[in-house]
Amino acid sequence: MFKKYNVIVVGAGHAGCEAAAAAANMGSSVLLITMNMGTIAQMSCNPAMGGVAKGQIVREIDAMGGYSGIITDKTSIQFRMLNQSKGPAMWSPRAQSDRMKFAEEWRSALEKTTNVDFWQDMVSSLIVKNNTVCGVRTSIGVEIEAESVVLTNGTFLNGVIHIGEKRFGGGRTGEKAATGLTEQLTELGFEAGRMKTGTPPRIDGRSLNYALMEEQWGDEERGRFSYTDVEQIQEQRCCWITYTNTDVHETLKEGFERSPMFTGRIKGLGPRYCPSIEDKINRFAERERHQIFVEPEGLNTVEIYVNGFSTSLPEDVQYKALVKIPGFENAKMFRPGYAIEYDYFPPTQLALTLETKLISNLFFAGQINGTTGYEEAASQGFIAGINAHQKVHDKHELIMKRSESYIGVLIDDLVTKGTEEPYRMFTSRAEHRLLLRQDNADIRLSPIGYELGLISDERLAKVNEKVKNSDAIVAYTKSHAIEPANVNTLLEELETSAINQNAKLFNLLSRPQVSFNDLRKADIALNELLSCFDKETVEQAEIKIKYESYFEKELEIVEKMKKMEDRAINPDFNYHQLVSVSKEAREKLMKIKPRTLGQASRISGVSPSDISVLMVHLTR
Amino acid sequence: MFKKYNVIVVGAGHAGCEAAAAAANMGSSVLLITMNMGTIAQMSCNPAMGGVAKGQIVREIDAMGGYSGIITDKTSIQFRMLNQSKGPAMWSPRAQSDRMKFAEEWRSALEKTTNVDFWQDMVSSLIVKNNTVCGVRTSIGVEIEAESVVLTNGTFLNGVIHIGEKRFGGGRTGEKAATGLTEQLTELGFEAGRMKTGTPPRIDGRSLNYALMEEQWGDEERGRFSYTDVEQIQEQRCCWITYTNTDVHETLKEGFERSPMFTGRIKGLGPRYCPSIEDKINRFAERERHQIFVEPEGLNTVEIYVNGFSTSLPEDVQYKALVKIPGFENAKMFRPGYAIEYDYFPPTQLALTLETKLISNLFFAGQINGTTGYEEAASQGFIAGINAHQKVHDKHELIMKRSESYIGVLIDDLVTKGTEEPYRMFTSRAEHRLLLRQDNADIRLSPIGYELGLISDERLAKVNEKVKNSDAIVAYTKSHAIEPANVNTLLEELETSAINQNAKLFNLLSRPQVSFNDLRKADIALNELLSCFDKETVEQAEIKIKYESYFEKELEIVEKMKKMEDRAINPDFNYHQLVSVSKEAREKLMKIKPRTLGQASRISGVSPSDISVLMVHLTR
Repeated sequence: MFKKYNVIVVGAGHAGCEAAAAAANMGSSVLLITMNMGTIAQMSCNPAMGGVAKGQIVREIDAMGGYSGIITDKTSIQFRMLNQSKGPAMWSPRAQSDRMKFAEEWRSALEKTTNVDFWQDMVSSLIVKNNTVCGVRTSIGVEIEAESVVLTNGTFLNGVIHIGEKRFGGGRTGEKAATGLTEQLTELGFEAGRMKTGTPPRIDGRSLNYALMEEQWGDEERGRFSYTDVEQIQEQRCCWITYTNTDVHETLKEGFERSPMFTGRIKGLGPRYCPSIEDKINRFAERERHQIFVEPEGLNTVEIYVNGFSTSLPEDVQYKALVKIPGFENAKMFRPGYAIEYDYFPPTQLALTLETKLISNLFFAGQINGTTGYEEAASQGFIAGINAHQKVHDKHELIMKRSESYIGVLIDDLVTKGTEEPYRMFTSRAEHRLLLRQDNADIRLSPIGYELGLISDERLAKVNEKVKNSDAIVAYTKSHAIEPANVNTLLEELETSAINQNAKLFNLLSRPQVSFNDLRKADIALNELLSCFDKETVEQAEIKIKYESYFEKELEIVEKMKKMEDRAINPDFNYHQLVSVSKEAREKLMKIKPRTLGQASRISGVSPSDISVLMVHLTR
Repeated sequence: MFKKYNVIVVGAGHAGCEAAAAAANMGSSVLLITMNMGTIAQMSCNPAMGGVAKGQIVREIDAMGGYSGIITDKTSIQFRMLNQSKGPAMWSPRAQSDRMKFAEEWRSALEKTTNVDFWQDMVSSLIVKNNTVCGVRTSIGVEIEAESVVLTNGTFLNGVIHIGEKRFGGGRTGEKAATGLTEQLTELGFEAGRMKTGTPPRIDGRSLNYALMEEQWGDEERGRFSYTDVEQIQEQRCCWITYTNTDVHETLKEGFERSPMFTGRIKGLGPRYCPSIEDKINRFAERERHQIFVEPEGLNTVEIYVNGFSTSLPEDVQYKALVKIPGFENAKMFRPGYAIEYDYFPPTQLALTLETKLISNLFFAGQINGTTGYEEAASQGFIAGINAHQKVHDKHELIMKRSESYIGVLIDDLVTKGTEEPYRMFTSRAEHRLLLRQDNADIRLSPIGYELGLISDERLAKVNEKVKNSDAIVAYTKSHAIEPANVNTLLEELETSAINQNAKLFNLLSRPQVSFNDLRKADIALNELLSCFDKETVEQAEIKIKYESYFEKELEIVEKMKKMEDRAINPDFNYHQLVSVSKEAREKLMKIKPRTLGQASRISGVSPSDISVLMVHLTR
């Protein structure tokens, strides 16, 4: 009934969809198994992609040939580049998507991906022989063979939904939980844990008074996630901002004694940086208000997502508090917010390829690894799909470096340090964040996508062209000067000091006040040159000029650390022989099996002196 | 948290959506409760609306101001008027819809319906006081008050899905069953039963060889369901026809011993006229092949619906048999077919308004009443929604007559005769089917919709105009003659006898060979007249001309029966006093509480002589 597949992907959320697409596009035969073909690529929580650090991840996936950026662009109804007042390392694209269209476009993209087959069913166990996964068994009792399996079960594994004192099994509201897999994996020796996440109530937009809220429109010049040219929805939508107040907080507090969070009924830890509203008023008791983002769920629906109001308080308490928020006086709920507890597997049980250490050819991606966020999930799925393909075709592993991508930071953090609460990406987690920008994700990663066969000759050529041209622009500014008479009026306007003698364009552009857009007004030749190139190329040149010295310093640091990062360690290395290393460090090293000295140095409990010992030993 | 609603509708399938829209459009405050807001108006089975007798029902709903016709038109990707070679009473519109768009458009239409609120939750019990329903309780524990409740639970009440020897709870595949309501209703005194229905496997269209199948395109001149002008999808899609063969049948038979149908695991009766493939090869053992309609699920999906191959055989048997169908040699399944058993309530427990006799203000509509089919469900929901509104506003009941609509036939059949297997509409069920045509549903029913406030002045005026104009055309053909010289060549071409003297246009048009389209070529004045009117008006005139004598006879019969049909019986009438009526008849009459002598005469077990006795008694 089924052929033997190269890769079976279990789950069709952000992680599963990227995994299936990547492996299939590289040439693997893929079976994507989902409990419901009608809910492929559901945005289970907010109808948005990107944001700080997360937007960079989507750009990285896109640069390497994944689909998340394309799907987001196709379905976005608002786009904003966050943090534009800060340095370019902080610029972060974020888009609201039409929730239904997002799911539709993903499904359509997968259906158009040759090599992806579909099966609607629940995977209840893995077929494992000789510590190698070789297929799955499903709830209706079929066995399907595969050379590798990627598990992306999201919040479905033994999912339990909490609303106040009520609890019921479910993978999302209205959907069944998945059972069987955790039990089998723990029998196989995996350590499992419990995590928690939550979602806010959904509101009937017709019942809100938007006049009492602040409008928030997208950027006038609308950006995009994908480096490819995707046809976009023209119609754009507004979001709104409103605030809680002490009255709201007091009302919520009345429900605390019935809260599953505070009564101990929820054991799993929730996402620290995406807390529930009850968490926020509890932890930040001094704050008199919290921001609420009122987000449309799509173009053709009145449903509203209340970003910032995630809660698992009793539904009557949710309601009583909601209607005290300005604009929500007559709010009607479609459904209450809820918390969900689910099984995860501490990710220190994984290699940097996202393959499990215990069972060969078994990969984990997404919330099953203890992360939170669509982007975090998608990127893991993408890498797991690639590595599953590479493994079953005896090709090299893909291990992303911390110095080249947020995805590298994410996976290295997970695998090396583990996580005990839902892991979310931040720019602060990346030590080389100056280099890991949304504007250069294509430059950083397209060569990798190309080498894997995930992006075309044309796409790579376009990236190389962008590099070449932006370098040419930079070179031009270094070699061309402008006379004081031609530029001083402009400089005065820009409130920066005038020049007394000819100055290099480069030097003027290094001033924070002066942009290409200013300078091209004063310099006809420059204007002509820039007119030959697209916006992104000019922007790239400008960023290079403005931050050249910072980038150079950062690259030096990367170069210095390279010695550590590139110093490979045999995964079978026996750390117990290092008697002068602390027992804790030896145990951690044995458990994590770091691939490089750099990775070893980031294991918590492994000290710099432990690393010195290890380095000496490796040098012998 | 909730206001008190006029009407709560439980379930958002075809029945629930029409009920909510109707009651809300009449002015009731409505709460629509669904277990999943993402699955509103799911087409659970085939992606098509209409068909023989069913298409007429959709036209009837539309004529009265319901939405099913509009939604179908908006989302249709193929339209065919079936039975055009037969008389106009048999013409039946049928459309393939894009499954996802159908659900989207329904949800959007409901969201645009002022007065409809939404709540995602499972109703677990009714609040009943003094034998009157006054609200619902849900699985998360909220109580919501209402003056009336419409239950449209579809296949969800204690739903059990069967595939071969496997069985699991579920309301549809991948969705939870609903529990609690049946238990409460039976405690309240309702009789409940078990029914069964099924659905075929879904197939990856990319794996089919269409070259081995027959193409089936829609009509060149595309029709529509709604009498309103709905914007339609321009792109149309092909269906295909293929056939099973003895090889397929033999393969299926190998699974019979593991079939839940034949091993007795399924107790409920399935739809006789929409049988599973195993049923067909069992009951029609002499047939060497059965037709399979291969239907696209939508514009942007490769998913295929295998109409005619509904089955609950083990999935491996389904697969082995499928691949022996021409064109299916390499078929890949998305999911297997399955059977589902669910609770229903024998509809003899209802009044003709669809209100239950036991509990006031409680209405049932759709599969809960033992019917099958989207159209049957939608029409019941529509009538239940109307009557719920009328009841809580102390307005008159809406009881549809058998002589004026298929909807009347459907409800009268259900309530008067009950059903022990899923009830499906056929033209043969309507004794006045000559009058109940798809072409005149607007003429028959728009006045009712108008009187209820469900259709506008403009719509009614348009219908009146159509009647007036078509009558004028008929009158013209009766008063105008044509000369032999002008028409005999045409008549010869049409292979009908020539005329010797001037003939009335009416008389020529009465000939089956001669149409308006023919005759207008020969008669300039006629052509000019017809050019003033739209297609539907001319068609209406033509049908009147061609079938005038039949219609007149039928109307005479209706008139004769009117005496019986209009003879009202007090619902509290005590039949036990009729000692000369058989005991069985008295019991049946007490149970059904017929509203008219006509209805009484259709109760099985009530003989013509019983009716005579009753008539005599009523006349006293």
